[in-house]
Order: sequence, then C-alpha cells, then structure tokens
Amino acid sequence: MSKEKAFVWRRRHLLGLEDLSRAELEHILDTATGFKEVSTRSIKKVPALRGKVVVNLFFEDSTRTRTSFALAASRLSADVLEFSARTSSVSKGETLRDTARNIEAMGVDLVVVRHPAAGAPHYLTRCIEPSVVNAGDGQHEHPTQGLLDLFTIREMKGRIEGLKVAIVGDIAHSRVARSDLFGLRKLGAEVTLIGPATLLPKAFREMGASLSCDLDDVIGRVDVVNMLRVQNERITSSVFPSVQEYSRLFGLTRERLARAKPDLLVMHPGPINRGVEIASDVADGAQSAILRQVSNGLAVRMAVLFLLNQASSKAA
Amino acid sequence: MSKEKAFVWRRRHLLGLEDLSRAELEHILDTATGFKEVSTRSIKKVPALRGKVVVNLFFEDSTRTRTSFALAASRLSADVLEFSARTSSVSKGETLRDTARNIEAMGVDLVVVRHPAAGAPHYLTRCIEPSVVNAGDGQHEHPTQGLLDLFTIREMKGRIEGLKVAIVGDIAHSRVARSDLFGLRKLGAEVTLIGPATLLPKAFREMGASLSCDLDDVIGRVDVVNMLRVQNERITSSVFPSVQEYSRLFGLTRERLARAKPDLLVMHPGPINRGVEIASDVADGAQSAILRQVSNGLAVRMAVLFLLNQASSKAA
Amino acid sequence: MSKEKAFVWRRRHLLGLEDLSRAELEHILDTATGFKEVSTRSIKKVPALRGKVVVNLFFEDSTRTRTSFALAASRLSADVLEFSARTSSVSKGETLRDTARNIEAMGVDLVVVRHPAAGAPHYLTRCIEPSVVNAGDGQHEHPTQGLLDLFTIREMKGRIEGLKVAIVGDIAHSRVARSDLFGLRKLGAEVTLIGPATLLPKAFREMGASLSCDLDDVIGRVDVVNMLRVQNERITSSVFPSVQEYSRLFGLTRERLARAKPDLLVMHPGPINRGVEIASDVADGAQSAILRQVSNGLAVRMAVLFLLNQASSKAA
Repeated sequence: MSKEKAFVWRRRHLLGLEDLSRAELEHILDTATGFKEVSTRSIKKVPALRGKVVVNLFFEDSTRTRTSFALAASRLSADVLEFSARTSSVSKGETLRDTARNIEAMGVDLVVVRHPAAGAPHYLTRCIEPSVVNAGDGQHEHPTQGLLDLFTIREMKGRIEGLKVAIVGDIAHSRVARSDLFGLRKLGAEVTLIGPATLLPKAFREMGASLSCDLDDVIGRVDVVNMLRVQNERITSSVFPSVQEYSRLFGLTRERLARAKPDLLVMHPGPINRGVEIASDVADGAQSAILRQVSNGLAVRMAVLFLLNQASSKAA
Repeated sequence: MSKEKAFVWRRRHLLGLEDLSRAELEHILDTATGFKEVSTRSIKKVPALRGKVVVNLFFEDSTRTRTSFALAASRLSADVLEFSARTSSVSKGETLRDTARNIEAMGVDLVVVRHPAAGAPHYLTRCIEPSVVNAGDGQHEHPTQGLLDLFTIREMKGRIEGLKVAIVGDIAHSRVARSDLFGLRKLGAEVTLIGPATLLPKAFREMGASLSCDLDDVIGRVDVVNMLRVQNERITSSVFPSVQEYSRLFGLTRERLARAKPDLLVMHPGPINRGVEIASDVADGAQSAILRQVSNGLAVRMAVLFLLNQASSKAA
Repeated sequence: MSKEKAFVWRRRHLLGLEDLSRAELEHILDTATGFKEVSTRSIKKVPALRGKVVVNLFFEDSTRTRTSFALAASRLSADVLEFSARTSSVSKGETLRDTARNIEAMGVDLVVVRHPAAGAPHYLTRCIEPSVVNAGDGQHEHPTQGLLDLFTIREMKGRIEGLKVAIVGDIAHSRVARSDLFGLRKLGAEVTLIGPATLLPKAFREMGASLSCDLDDVIGRVDVVNMLRVQNERITSSVFPSVQEYSRLFGLTRERLARAKPDLLVMHPGPINRGVEIASDVADGAQSAILRQVSNGLAVRMAVLFLLNQASSKAA
C-alpha cells in the first residue's frame, strides 16, 4: 500500500486514475517533482525521449491540453506530431481503429488521445501497440488533469491524506470531477461534490464522495475547493434559469471566500469564466493556485510520458 | 540498365516515376532499405539533414501523406515547416510562383508539394532553386506512393521482375495507378488495369498495361492486387448506379480472394472504405500489406529526401 | 548618439521602433548581419536559444510573418509553439490576459504576438514576465517589418543617412508605414508619404514626414520606394472608385520606373497584388528587393529573438 524502497513502474498506458494504486499515484507525483525542477533551468530540456515520436490525436479541440502535452514531450526531447481529426482521413469516414493503426504504422511511440466517447482510449490499447495516454474521454476521465490537481494540492498543503476537498459545479458531466475523486480518495482525502441536484448523480456516493447542493454549508469546512468550469451551452439548455442564478448559488465570490478557512486553496481546471463560477478577484487572489496548476500540468505530463515510455522500452 | 557498382544519384527533384530509369528506381529502393532499419531502432533518428528545412506545401488536404513526409524529414533531423495553403497568402490571391519564391527566400531546402493541378511541381522547379518533391499533382503522378508500392512488393515477393500485378478501381482519375504503372513496367512486372469501362482509358495500353473490365477473369492469375480507394463523390455523380453495384463487381471480397493464388499480395493506398472496394476481413487478413505500405512509406520518403538533398549539396 | 565600442542591449521587449534609439536600431541591424551569414551555411542552425520556447500567439492570420518567426526561432535552436487564437480557449471567451498568463505558466520564454488591437503587445508586457515581440498590432506598428526594411536599404545602399525614401499607399491604415517612418527618421533618412488625400493623415507631418498625393511628382527624386499592399476590401468600400483608378495614380508601372533614378530601390512588404500597386515586370525586375526583404526578415527576427533573450537571461 505504501512506497517500497524500489517501486517499479510497469504500466504502458494511462487510461484513468480509477485503475491506479496509491503507490502508482505517488510514484507519478514523485517523478513529476523531479521534472518540475527541469522547468526552472535555463535550458528546459532533458534527452529522455530523444528519437521518440509522441502524437497528439485530438478528436475534440483543446489548445490548452494539447499544448501542454506538446511542450512536455518537447522538454523530453521527443518529436511531436499534431494529428488534427478535423482535416484528417477521419473526415473521409475512416474508423478510429484504422486511423490509429495507420499512425502506429508510421512508428509513433506514444499516442495522446482526446475523444468525445468514453472508453475510446481503452479501445485504442486493444488496437495498437504504442502507449496510450487518455487526455480526456467523454464524461469519463481526464487523468492528467486529476494528477496535476493532486500534485498541486500536495505541493501547497504538504500532504493529501486527511484533507477535506470540495469540487463544485456540473459534477454529472465532468471528467475532471471523476478523475479528481478517484485520485483524492486513494490518497486519503475526504471529497464533497457540490452542485445543483440535477447535476449531482447519487452514484458518486458509491465512489466514496459526500454530496451537497449547498456550497455555503460546506465552504467553511474544507481545505481545498476546485471550481469546475460552467459550460455555457448547458446553462442555456435550461438546466439553470440563468448564469446569474448559477453564480449566486455556486460561484466562489469574495464574500464566500471570507467565510472559508483562511488557508483555503482555490483551484480551477481552466479556462475560467470570470464572474460566473469564480469571481475575478478570487481567481487572481493569493489563495488561487490556478496558474500553478497549469505549470504543474507540464511536470505531471512529462512524468507520465517518461514513465510510460520506460515501461514500453522494458517490455520491448 | 542494371546497378553499376558505384551508382551516383544526380536528380535534384522527384516529379514522377515516368522520368526515372530502372537504375534510379532501384537505387531509391536500396536506399530505403537502409532507412527502414533506422525505424526499428530505439532512437529513430539520423543526422543526415540536420539544419535543413523541409516545407510541406499542401494545396489539398492529406493528413496521411503530409504526416509521413513530416516524420520522414524529422527522422533525418531536418526542421519541418507546415505551410497550409488555406490560411496563407494564397487565400489573398497570391500566385503559386510568388508563394513558392517567398518560401524559397526564407531559405528552405526541400519543398514537398501537393497540388490539384497536374504539372504544378514541374512548374515549381522552374520558379525556385530548392529541391521539389511531388506529393501528388492532380490526376498525374504520386511518385512516393508508387515507390512505396514497389518497395512493399519487392520486400514481400523478393522481386518485381516477371510478377503479374492488377490495379483495380477508378483508373482514369488515379495518380496512384499511373505512378504504379510507370514504376512496375520499368522494373519488369506485367500490369493489368481493371475497372468499369468508363473509368479505364484506352491510352493506358500505350503505357504498357493490359486492360480489363472483369476482375473475376483476372484475379486467379495475378501475384499482387492493388485496390484503389473509391471516391464516394464520383460514385454519387452517377458513374456507378451505386456503391453496392461497384462493390459487387470490383470489390475484393473473401469469395474472390478464395479464387486467387494462395500467396496473392493485397495492397491499398488508404484510407480504405471497408466493405466497398475491399472487405473488412480481407483488409485485416494475412495477405494484406496495407499497414506495411504505410510503414514503408516512411522509409521511402526518407530515402527520397536524403538523395535529393545529397544531389543539391553536391550541385551547390 | 552613435555606436559606442561596447553597446549593451538591455531591452526585454520589442514593441515598436518609435521607442528605440539610433544606437539600438543599429545594434539590431549589426546583429542581424551576423545572423544573415548563418543562413548561408550548409547547416543553418546555431544553439543560441536551445531549450527555450518561443510561442507564436497570432490573433490575426499571417502565414508569412508567423512562418518567418518560426524559422528564425528554429535556426536559433528554440522550440516553437504555434498558438492559434481561433481554435483556442480565446474562442471560449477567455481574456487576452488570461490566455497570455496561461501560456506564461507553461514556461515559455518569448511571446511573439499579432493582434488586431493597437497596444495589445504593450498590455501583455504588463501581464506576463516573458519577452514580448510585437508582430503587428492593429494600425500601430510592425517593428520587425520596419527593421527588415532598414536592413535591406542599408545592405543595398550602403547607408540610410541622407537617403530619400517614398512610402506609397494607404498610409492611414498601415502599421508598416509607421514603423518604417520611425526607423528611417532615426537613422537620418528623409521620408515622403504618398497616397490618396483621404488615406494620408496630416498628423504624420509631426512625425517628421513630408506628404504628397502625387507619385509622379516625387518618383524622380527618391532613392527608395516602398509600395504598400492595397487591401482590396478597403477599395471596394469605396475609398477609391476602382482598383484601376488606384493603379493609374499610385501603381509602380514600368513607365513610372523609367522616370525614376536608375538605381531606385523598389520594395514591398508582400504579398504583392501584381498589376495593382506594382506591375509584374517591376516586381520581378533588377531593382526589386522584394524577395531579399523576405530573406532579410529571417536574419532580423533571429537578431531580435537573440537580443531579447540575452537581456532576459541577464535580468534573471
């Protein structure tokens, strides 16, 4: 259950945090700590993946995550291939399997995939040999986002065990909430999921979370709050009467922050809607770790690419 | 006519297989064999083109070919510049010549060009100094596709001389068929072009091919079959009554395969339309070289970029 | 006022030529001269920015400028990150500041920004730490275009001091005209701005320029003429009766060239409208420096990235 003196990483794919053991999670975080140091150097590069090819296979737009993976790969000296699904043979009706097998045939080593369908990355691991990293699959998981959240909490709080963490927003549709929940529970945090009742499925209780529809009731008791991005398209589809109403009930305002613990850590997966789920001054305030999360995302993704490649090289 | 002991490659451009001698074709294939080995190494890079710039100048979308050239250039340690014609000054009405001369002025070394007009790459060689590689020009040629087909046949069959090869589909509009035909004839194969009469111009007879409208008549006698991709837009434009009708007459089904030689090599330039020109189980079957073609495409393109650059460096 | 024997570059940002001293301008041009030599080598790379990340943050399309910066960064061995504003979180309503701070959090070293709003690059320097290069901001400045124009004039004429330079076209809306004017005046050239009265604001007189609506009156007396690109969308918005009318009054035709000094240097920032602001044979003629400008753009941008990075490294 704990870190042995010589933990050996064996996984070739990162599909979700649900699958990982506590020792595996901690090993990734420890490895990322080393890579974070690389980012502070004048020459931010290590030769670990020289001559390897990482492909960004994105079936949904996400400049932010795509860029983070590209920079992480580049800092490991890998070559990065951007494979946009919109201009590719996918638009000529090619199946996901055929697209992936073609990319594999070109000799890529790691495939970073984002796909609107939950399970697509898992399916890919059955189609192709290269390592697969889930960069977000439908409403299922976004494991590197979960990892960077864990990393940031551990970095700022010194530990995760025993912390009280609130995740606020559209829980039902959030792969971030799911990955966070799996990771936080495994590392011993207590998690409360908060949101409108219609967006807060009871099933999350079985995954170890407490549920609440009342942010004001919870805000005073937690050490960390993660404010999920509001998808405007959902609001207008009348789950909420209005953005203003959402903001009034679930937005992190300065007033709410004043009622929280003085060392509450404020997080957000970005991009933020200023004045909707988080007030501008709170997002920019001293307790906000939002930009730190972005920086840590790079270190965590370097660690993931590094470990998966190492396991693949050993296997080969 | 044969490989002398010290063949010297002198061409600075690759415009089509029609222009190449048998010795030149064989020299490319031999060079590609060496580069295929590079792709099996843990570090898939050689420094041959370090400090050189290869530009992908694509006036038609083709993620597959573009990606293959980018990876090939990258494995030779060149820098790759993607120049999309859709967002460029081309859309501001700039001529092909001005676009190319501007790219030249930026100091690129090799220009890989795809263009809807036959002859565009030839025209470029008269406008600019850098080496030009034809990555597909209208319905004229697609020489690196032809070369990877030759490479794959030679690799799988041990020779090309004396083989019987069928190419099946919309021959009239296929640059792949033309490049294949030129290359195969020069290396001593017999080529039968098969398709609906309306898509099978008599002029191909003068280029050394046999013509047939009856796949069932030919399938039992050939060593290799190359199934061209059906362009759905052409079918719906009523050359065929329907996709089903095309598939019934010219699709490579399991039943047809059963009537072929047991070691028939099945090829396809991709992306495949499963169930149209080729049945799913045939595409994935033991006789299919489709993914091998993709892998070989990289080796062949490395060889082409390497040889053209070498000739340019000597000329300079 | 002149080059001291040990000029020390201290600026971390390049926002416009209006801010630069004569010594600074000359230092950039001298540095670019060194980098131009690199582009003539067989291996066109120096390790000056190895391990650094340059991001192209373009809120307007410009393949040409974007490509030139990417190649310049690549020749300095930097990693280049293309951040297209159209597919990014910008389209999800993120503010410029948030976008920039996120990019900063990923650890980039230099931000090359093009933006439709004048002053956007200046604003960025107040939001983020990395060096900022203005690659065109609204109708304000395009300093690297100005610098490459200065470099080209100095290279071809041996000096700038005392030269007579005409800039012809839509002066009112041209950031190129403004950057050229600032740079040329500081280095001692006389500048005449020429165009239709409606596109020739009197305010330019206070910036040291002469104004004229009559190209024929001026063409015989200048050493250099810079023909600005006509934006067709402006013409059709009825500032001019027609493209033909513009061309008749302000186009550089062979006839006009015949009445100019025999060594008149002809420039254009590109892409050119053949037959509109410049005749085809003039653009391609012996006096045209248009493609040389493109080549020099690379050297100048290498110099700018190099100097800004050096100043940042010292500051850190």
